Amino acid sequence: MFTDEYFMKMALQEAEIAFEKDEVPIGCVVVSNNRVIARAHNLTETLNDVTAHAEMQAITSAANFLGGKYLINCTLYVTLEPCVMCSGALYWAQISKVVIGARDEQRGFINKNLSLHPKTEIVSGIMENECSLIVKEFFKAKR
Amino acid sequence: MFTDEYFMKMALQEAEIAFEKDEVPIGCVVVSNNRVIARAHNLTETLNDVTAHAEMQAITSAANFLGGKYLINCTLYVTLEPCVMCSGALYWAQISKVVIGARDEQRGFINKNLSLHPKTEIVSGIMENECSLIVKEFFKAKR
Repeated sequence: MFTDEYFMKMALQEAEIAFEKDEVPIGCVVVSNNRVIARAHNLTETLNDVTAHAEMQAITSAANFLGGKYLINCTLYVTLEPCVMCSGALYWAQISKVVIGARDEQRGFINKNLSLHPKTEIVSGIMENECSLIVKEFFKAKR
Repeated sequence: MFTDEYFMKMALQEAEIAFEKDEVPIGCVVVSNNRVIARAHNLTETLNDVTAHAEMQAITSAANFLGGKYLINCTLYVTLEPCVMCSGALYWAQISKVVIGARDEQRGFINKNLSLHPKTEIVSGIMENECSLIVKEFFKAKR
């Protein structure tokens, strides 16, 4: 039951909430022991704050829940590959695992030759098409 | 009067406040038209939040003050070279200028081959010794 698809679907629901708010539709959840301890979506427009990416909010929220700043035994599911800022935050958080939906060739951390913490396992391509499609639809509607 | 040293001294005062709180002593201010519109120091321990670097808080705070998310005509003065996370945030903010006190060869964005926004001018080495010394003293006391 608790597959990567199961939790990525939840992240995608967050992205859909962002879409309805006219925010770039990216969502994520943080999971610890098969329990969702944080969920967030991009709020940069709503909050007028470039730092309000889904991952940033989820990291802060999960740390609050855990009462400690390191996200040990936690997995972040995110619909789009994290940007430089968010990859840096995930590095500091020493999160155990990051599961990515779609790649972001242009803004993502991977093509910038950045790596996450040595403790962090990375999985990519979970529900890739759905995660990619919602972003494409958003920008198509903007044009 | 409004030299880079003038504002870097204010950033260093923020670093000193962090030092007194047993936080890694890094401070910054954001200046717009010679007016300080945000000041912050590292609060990762106090807030139990890896994202609570001085720069991140200052970016959010300055955007709040301006009522817009882009830090146009703003200069960030920071005592230590921004890390990957903070450089990513400064990129998104499209800040006009970043003035760095001391370099951070290991964790700073420059040696990761990252660049800020094309619109961003970078100046480095303002009050370098003072900015470097406070961090060294902090970690010496920790050992």
